[in-house]
Amino acid sequence: MEKVVSLCKRRGFVFPGSEIYGGLANSWDYGELGTQLKKNIKDLWWKRFVEKRDDIVGVDAALIMNPRVWEASGHLKEFSDPLVECKKCHHRFRADHVDKKCPDCGGALTGAKQFNLMFKTFLGPAEDDSNVVYFRPETAQAMFVDFKNVLETSRKKIPFGIAQIGKAFRNEITPGNFIFRTREFEQMEIEYFIKEQDWEKQFDYWKKEMWSWITDSLGINKKNVRELEVLDGERAHYSKRTIDFEYHFPFGLKELYGLAYRTDFDLKNHFKEPPYKDSETGEAFYPHVVEPTFGVDRSILAILCDAYEEQQERIVLKLKPALAPFKAAIFPLLKNKPELVKKAEEIYHDLQKDFAVTFDDRGNIGKRYYSQDEIGTPFGITCDFQTLEDNTVTVRDRDTMKQERIKISELKSYIQNALQKN
Amino acid sequence: MEKVVSLCKRRGFVFPGSEIYGGLANSWDYGELGTQLKKNIKDLWWKRFVEKRDDIVGVDAALIMNPRVWEASGHLKEFSDPLVECKKCHHRFRADHVDKKCPDCGGALTGAKQFNLMFKTFLGPAEDDSNVVYFRPETAQAMFVDFKNVLETSRKKIPFGIAQIGKAFRNEITPGNFIFRTREFEQMEIEYFIKEQDWEKQFDYWKKEMWSWITDSLGINKKNVRELEVLDGERAHYSKRTIDFEYHFPFGLKELYGLAYRTDFDLKNHFKEPPYKDSETGEAFYPHVVEPTFGVDRSILAILCDAYEEQQERIVLKLKPALAPFKAAIFPLLKNKPELVKKAEEIYHDLQKDFAVTFDDRGNIGKRYYSQDEIGTPFGITCDFQTLEDNTVTVRDRDTMKQERIKISELKSYIQNALQKN
Repeated sequence: MEKVVSLCKRRGFVFPGSEIYGGLANSWDYGELGTQLKKNIKDLWWKRFVEKRDDIVGVDAALIMNPRVWEASGHLKEFSDPLVECKKCHHRFRADHVDKKCPDCGGALTGAKQFNLMFKTFLGPAEDDSNVVYFRPETAQAMFVDFKNVLETSRKKIPFGIAQIGKAFRNEITPGNFIFRTREFEQMEIEYFIKEQDWEKQFDYWKKEMWSWITDSLGINKKNVRELEVLDGERAHYSKRTIDFEYHFPFGLKELYGLAYRTDFDLKNHFKEPPYKDSETGEAFYPHVVEPTFGVDRSILAILCDAYEEQQERIVLKLKPALAPFKAAIFPLLKNKPELVKKAEEIYHDLQKDFAVTFDDRGNIGKRYYSQDEIGTPFGITCDFQTLEDNTVTVRDRDTMKQERIKISELKSYIQNALQKN
Repeated sequence: MEKVVSLCKRRGFVFPGSEIYGGLANSWDYGELGTQLKKNIKDLWWKRFVEKRDDIVGVDAALIMNPRVWEASGHLKEFSDPLVECKKCHHRFRADHVDKKCPDCGGALTGAKQFNLMFKTFLGPAEDDSNVVYFRPETAQAMFVDFKNVLETSRKKIPFGIAQIGKAFRNEITPGNFIFRTREFEQMEIEYFIKEQDWEKQFDYWKKEMWSWITDSLGINKKNVRELEVLDGERAHYSKRTIDFEYHFPFGLKELYGLAYRTDFDLKNHFKEPPYKDSETGEAFYPHVVEPTFGVDRSILAILCDAYEEQQERIVLKLKPALAPFKAAIFPLLKNKPELVKKAEEIYHDLQKDFAVTFDDRGNIGKRYYSQDEIGTPFGITCDFQTLEDNTVTVRDRDTMKQERIKISELKSYIQNALQKN
């Protein structure tokens, strides 16, 4: 784990938020490469689950919703952790994390009280109760609250889904494990609306889709992911079936994604009248919901852990080409030969029209390869003296380290092919 | 304006946030088409200013930063509006918006007090002063605070920029004008770091880039945008020159984007030692900053207002193809001819591999065209009986309403060409 964190910091994937001010309670900023990796994951997800499908439409809802949403959803009452407070130093702790005495000063502790995990703030200038609002603790509720607006404008029929990518906020008492548990995080989520009698079929379908996303789209090794059936009594009260997809993180098997059958619990909370009418039978009813949830930050962490490999003299991130921040790096063989530099720059600028690529003329070729291996760049393209004669370059593969000569004119389709694998 | 708002609601670009609970103080949710339009704008911006350039790198920073950031930036002290409070009903108002009496109950008003516009909340369970944190009121400070981390990992040399797209939050007393002024909004922003002596040259360069973005990338009519030189005494105290790009919104000429020369004010606030060293001279210094800022939500509003046109019998959104939520709509000429429907579906699914497209078999062709015109779909592709014979379709142009016959095999390059204009 330390190795992945160190690589992230060293190469600009992720560094501590507000670091020059001593950071802030496990908050993290994505740097150049992390931002691009994150964007690539989100774009891939959006393309796969929204743009390429007929039955799923996107929304992008406000982070601050009317507080009555959280009343209806149960979050105001239920979304809390039990806390105890030290009578002496007034520090607070999760009740299940301490014994009888304060871990900080040894003082006596109060009994446990419920502490709501939503971040609250005040809308408008007056800081009184009537102006309290909350930053959403999950993206899901927006899709339920907007259900009728989406239905009327998209004119979809069941089964159909509403998808959203966006931030959510939880005032966790004990965030930690790098970007695994943070107080602000990003979710990619689908609420898929179905007829009640189809739930088992749809649940199975989405389970397969999630596996395919994990292994085919993200390229995560199947062996490192476990499907966990969440048992009766451990599920959220509204869920009739939940599966956690757990990834074998360096700190243990932990939840990566979740798939839940939420029944008609949410739509019933928000709508007094059935919000859906069958166009054939005319029957009005509450659709049921299957919900696949994908954490963005956890995806990044799992991808990085999974792709990280140490080989004798190099570190290599075996990212799928579609996810890699740079698709190729272009090098002039020698820095002090202007004709090579010029040719390499030409190739670089031409590729840049279609792909995120980078240019490097520092150090020797071997060092440049290793530097790109470490950030997952699939191809190293070197411009040498032969290039000047026959317009071919060497393309070095990150994973096999093998080199082949390719015509410059064929580079784009070469890269394009690699990107389209899954 | 009402017409644009009505179109947005009717067709699912934008609808009121939390509407089933009576909404929430000018908050808005993006529906299917608005979400796609927003994504298209952000992707285009990112491609143009980050991926296609050698000198700008992205970051994606936490929304909650260490409060010392806002102390150093001056936001804790300065980022406020003067408010008065009614002594009777305790409602508060912006001092410059009321006379001597409370507009609600006629009671007497207190003197004006400064009200900070940052949303505050508490990190961790204890709601005391030491745990107060703020949701960022602008994206800019993250790029200054992360300056050294980005510099070290990207190894860029001046001039170079750091770009970010993300949400910011301001507890505005009087939000309004649809999505023009909301309490949460999204910014696309670049902090471009330069040598002091280059500021005028760089300022001019970025002014041109912003104009090109507005007219070439977004396709906004130049006549509807005015460049406003912000005068001495009206600029933020740290800025030596600021230009507002104002758009002619239906409610008046209002700020769309801003371009500011921020000097070295921000880096000096955050770094005790000069954070940059010239690699040739070895001289350490504080880079100066030119900052182009682009509001995402305001971009959407300007684009919609600019593209909206009423013609005799139709409403048409003349969106640039690259921005349109759907690039094409595919229709079977008749719904009740299975062979036409099947062929149209084949074309649809094939195009869907590469583009966001939609399918419609409701009503007659004329109605379908108009329905697509209203949401800006550039091309209507109709599959008719001739299609079954010679594999050609009619492609109807949104703006000219002219139709031409195109081979199915040429559709992709036809659409691709339209997308690549600018």
